[in-house]
Amino acid sequence: MIEGLILLPNALHPLVDSNELLPPILLDIVPTLSGIIAESEKGARIFLKRFTFNKHKTFRDLPIHLLNEHTSLEEVETLLMLLKKGNNWGLISDCGLPVIADPGAKLVHLAHKENIPVYAYPGPSSIILALMLSGLPGQTFTFHGYLPRSLLLLKKKIGLIQRLQDQTHIFIEVPYRTVKLFQVLTTELKDDFILCAAANLTLPRQEVVVKKIKVWKKENFSNWNKKPVVFVVGKHITSF
Amino acid sequence: MIEGLILLPNALHPLVDSNELLPPILLDIVPTLSGIIAESEKGARIFLKRFTFNKHKTFRDLPIHLLNEHTSLEEVETLLMLLKKGNNWGLISDCGLPVIADPGAKLVHLAHKENIPVYAYPGPSSIILALMLSGLPGQTFTFHGYLPRSLLLLKKKIGLIQRLQDQTHIFIEVPYRTVKLFQVLTTELKDDFILCAAANLTLPRQEVVVKKIKVWKKENFSNWNKKPVVFVVGKHITSF
Repeated sequence: MIEGLILLPNALHPLVDSNELLPPILLDIVPTLSGIIAESEKGARIFLKRFTFNKHKTFRDLPIHLLNEHTSLEEVETLLMLLKKGNNWGLISDCGLPVIADPGAKLVHLAHKENIPVYAYPGPSSIILALMLSGLPGQTFTFHGYLPRSLLLLKKKIGLIQRLQDQTHIFIEVPYRTVKLFQVLTTELKDDFILCAAANLTLPRQEVVVKKIKVWKKENFSNWNKKPVVFVVGKHITSF
Repeated sequence: MIEGLILLPNALHPLVDSNELLPPILLDIVPTLSGIIAESEKGARIFLKRFTFNKHKTFRDLPIHLLNEHTSLEEVETLLMLLKKGNNWGLISDCGLPVIADPGAKLVHLAHKENIPVYAYPGPSSIILALMLSGLPGQTFTFHGYLPRSLLLLKKKIGLIQRLQDQTHIFIEVPYRTVKLFQVLTTELKDDFILCAAANLTLPRQEVVVKKIKVWKKENFSNWNKKPVVFVVGKHITSF
């Protein structure tokens, strides 16, 4: 049994029962955990239900601690005290990979400072899947997280993205602002840029649409309303 | 059976026999492939040997086509012709994820243009695992691929990375230049930057070392000589 902080992948959608996209090693690791550190209690329970525990233990016996944008530094230090006791705690995100677009890094950083071993396991990331599916270059890319809310700052940011055209750009937006972001992107980006919109990745209803801005411009985007979209923007490689 | 171009993850190290880090769905998909598009013939055979085919077929019956930095545009178009026949072809990299730090994107781009369905499955990426393990922020990050070879351009690039300190930076180097890159990074980066060096990820001999530049400076880096290292550079979040 490994001891320390174990960064575990989660499915991209809590309602997907199947574990077919998660590495099988999790079936061995999760039942041995001392407890789980999660973005939300509900997310932790959905994750734990995926695994079979031995007859003396159920997923309900595992302590759950929260780590999210509301967690104070004192609370993070309490988590660190738990880790220092030498047990093995899993860190998960509500979907996808912990630390990526998620506040888990602070705990990893503190664990290193205390010489607590840290392990990480691979799994689905909507950001990386969107990049792979976009057909845009993966040699150099930036993940921007959420773009600014203010229209002025948003336009400035899109201008910067447009100037850095030797790399591919990935960003996300909260579902209720998806249509607005499509409108600003198609107004601000030059016609020959490629925009890939990816939603519901890994689900049967997965949508990946790749078009030049000049084609996107003719649409009204209502189909994308309230969907959590990963946006990928760039230019394709003309030489090979 | 799905038809189209299927982006499949590979293990990070060809000599790892176990499939415990690959999604179990590959066990269903790979034996149904019409053929495989790979970086190298050797890499394709090592990958295919991981899977069990039905009794009428072995991994040797699967056609292998190459897609790498030596592939001409004409050859890519031949691959496209194969895809247009309606079969299902897997695209793999010698290690990790195709398209990420790899020339596969061109084929994905052309497949979209021809309305050929493209699917992608998650798996290990040394870049993403290194970022997770670094403890550096994953809210916004850039993958730079290989840094420039010329010392002048390399110093300029490190200067740029240093100025963009609101994001985490990831890059790779060919093993025989690892020590040289450590020397330049520790000379050029300010003392309070954090550098994470990750090697042999997912192997038992995995090494992940995270220190401030001022601490790295005291070392001679010979331990890292000829190792394929993923470098992660940034500043940690002081507030939470």
